[in-house]
Amino acid sequence: MGEPAGIGGEITLKAWLARKEATLPAFFAIDDPDRLRREAAREGLAAPIETIEHPGQAQDVFRRALPVLPLRLPGTLEPGKPDSANAETVLTSLRRAVSLAREGLALAVVTNPVQKRVLYAAGFRHPGHTEYLAELLDSRQPPVMMLCCPGLRAVPVTIHLPLKAAIEALDEAGIVHAGSVAAEALRRDFGIARPRLAVAGLNPHAGEGGSLGREEIDIVAPAIERLRAAGLAVTGPAPADTLFHAAARERYDAALCLYHDQALIPLKTIDFDRGVNVTLGLSIVRTSPDHGTALDIAGQGVANPSSMIAALRLAGQMATKRLQAGIAEAGIAEAGKHKSRKTKAGHVEAADAAQGNLV
Amino acid sequence: MGEPAGIGGEITLKAWLARKEATLPAFFAIDDPDRLRREAAREGLAAPIETIEHPGQAQDVFRRALPVLPLRLPGTLEPGKPDSANAETVLTSLRRAVSLAREGLALAVVTNPVQKRVLYAAGFRHPGHTEYLAELLDSRQPPVMMLCCPGLRAVPVTIHLPLKAAIEALDEAGIVHAGSVAAEALRRDFGIARPRLAVAGLNPHAGEGGSLGREEIDIVAPAIERLRAAGLAVTGPAPADTLFHAAARERYDAALCLYHDQALIPLKTIDFDRGVNVTLGLSIVRTSPDHGTALDIAGQGVANPSSMIAALRLAGQMATKRLQAGIAEAGIAEAGKHKSRKTKAGHVEAADAAQGNLV
Repeated sequence: MGEPAGIGGEITLKAWLARKEATLPAFFAIDDPDRLRREAAREGLAAPIETIEHPGQAQDVFRRALPVLPLRLPGTLEPGKPDSANAETVLTSLRRAVSLAREGLALAVVTNPVQKRVLYAAGFRHPGHTEYLAELLDSRQPPVMMLCCPGLRAVPVTIHLPLKAAIEALDEAGIVHAGSVAAEALRRDFGIARPRLAVAGLNPHAGEGGSLGREEIDIVAPAIERLRAAGLAVTGPAPADTLFHAAARERYDAALCLYHDQALIPLKTIDFDRGVNVTLGLSIVRTSPDHGTALDIAGQGVANPSSMIAALRLAGQMATKRLQAGIAEAGIAEAGKHKSRKTKAGHVEAADAAQGNLV
Repeated sequence: MGEPAGIGGEITLKAWLARKEATLPAFFAIDDPDRLRREAAREGLAAPIETIEHPGQAQDVFRRALPVLPLRLPGTLEPGKPDSANAETVLTSLRRAVSLAREGLALAVVTNPVQKRVLYAAGFRHPGHTEYLAELLDSRQPPVMMLCCPGLRAVPVTIHLPLKAAIEALDEAGIVHAGSVAAEALRRDFGIARPRLAVAGLNPHAGEGGSLGREEIDIVAPAIERLRAAGLAVTGPAPADTLFHAAARERYDAALCLYHDQALIPLKTIDFDRGVNVTLGLSIVRTSPDHGTALDIAGQGVANPSSMIAALRLAGQMATKRLQAGIAEAGIAEAGKHKSRKTKAGHVEAADAAQGNLV
């Protein structure tokens, strides 16, 4: 659902309307069906809404209407004016999405933007959406953010910190963690067998051998060594200004960036409208548009759904890859079992069975 | 000349060869004609070299050969291996260029990249090229760097400092100085009557009202106020990640950036090959390619001259604008003189004379 006073409803309806051209996977909203109907009427969007009782109905309904698993909003619903009386329902929507994904009743969760201060006013105590998801999913490790647009995947190692604090917070362990989680996700969710990571430097010219700053020598290079020691293909520290032109981007699958704007400046310069925020390191697939609630234009029908559409499409692609990898893994595990059985019994059907599962 | 062991000779020769397609203004090198001949022969560049004795000959020679005002290099000349015995001559080339420009015998100076450590070994004591130029020209004020590519002009307020030191060095006066000098140059050298400046924030989301850093509130916003009070059209502080996509760039003539990579990441992402470094606030026009000496590829004939070509073209355009502005100004001053005379004598020819000078 996200913040109901923002553009979330509008971009969800517009994404459903674009489902064919955009080749989107079937999705359903966890939202208030009446408020979505009013939203569609207000903005002249010819998107019918159909309430479903169970996610299993979504696939079928999706062809003719936007399927909505209903949640009634108790507060006021004025575009651009968030009401903290709705905050608990916004969080319920998120919790419900997560538990459906956990149970395998949804293959991925796509979150609409929330208004943090409204959630805080209602007693929410997490730095953001992502940290709350990690808690709901009992993540063993802090999640890692990746931003994707056509042509670039960028992983900010530090995120919502003042720049000075981000420099102070930068450490070897953080870079190693981000790199390991990113590489694992690129393999599992993006189908890249041997992911190549490029790590940006912090200082101008990546510190120019120490004369323009020592973080590259003291922190970044040792982190790169550790990632390489773990068998990953990692280059850097590279001068950040020469890392994002088209030819440079050919040479890696994801760039590890050391602060928010080092990742976001190139991403939004290259493709302002279609950036997607992906949370890596969770047990479920989760994406979101890379913009906010846009309260200033809510309810006017002028919101651009490109980022939401890209988030839905990417979630579908990641879920498919993960499903395939899971099937392959299950197949291999199964094959392993058979193999050990074979050692005992001398049969050979195990490898064939695994290959069948890989299709 | 720049560092003779680098790619400077090669890109100068290639720029001369491209003079027609690239519509370059006439230029001459201050260099060793023999080493340029050897360079051309080694790299198979069909660029004849012709020695000139005076800049006045350059315009004519330029049509058939690269005009070279000769300076003999005393040291060894091996591509990729700088010899500090040549350092003094590299600096002489720069000094000669500056004095010719001062005397009006050249309309602009374009500098090839130098190898700073070689100059330092020979006793050079300036942080860089630019500061040395400012000293040679007795500049009253520190010069300001602007980077230009098709679609973006970016002015880094701090430059070659470690990122942490750049944040510490950031102050209101520095932003006001960079903004004033940039606005003045955009008017005089770029012909933009009312330049629009956009100032980037330092922190993620430009500090989000103070919750992600206070520099926007304490330093950047007051500087913007002072620039506005001086009559300039200035917006910001803007989140840096949303400042550089195509639609955003339509809304300003130059972006003031608070640190090196904030300017260089978008510039080199948008156009890696054609960036030009312009020094603003000098009494002469000076541009340079935005890359280094590229010792690793020197002498192989593979260097890309695009940035040098763009630097030469931009220098020509700026010199033309400045000349026109100078003529207009002289005309206005002249008109002013006549006007005061007219007040005494009642004549009206002054305004006509000034208008003639504006053509």
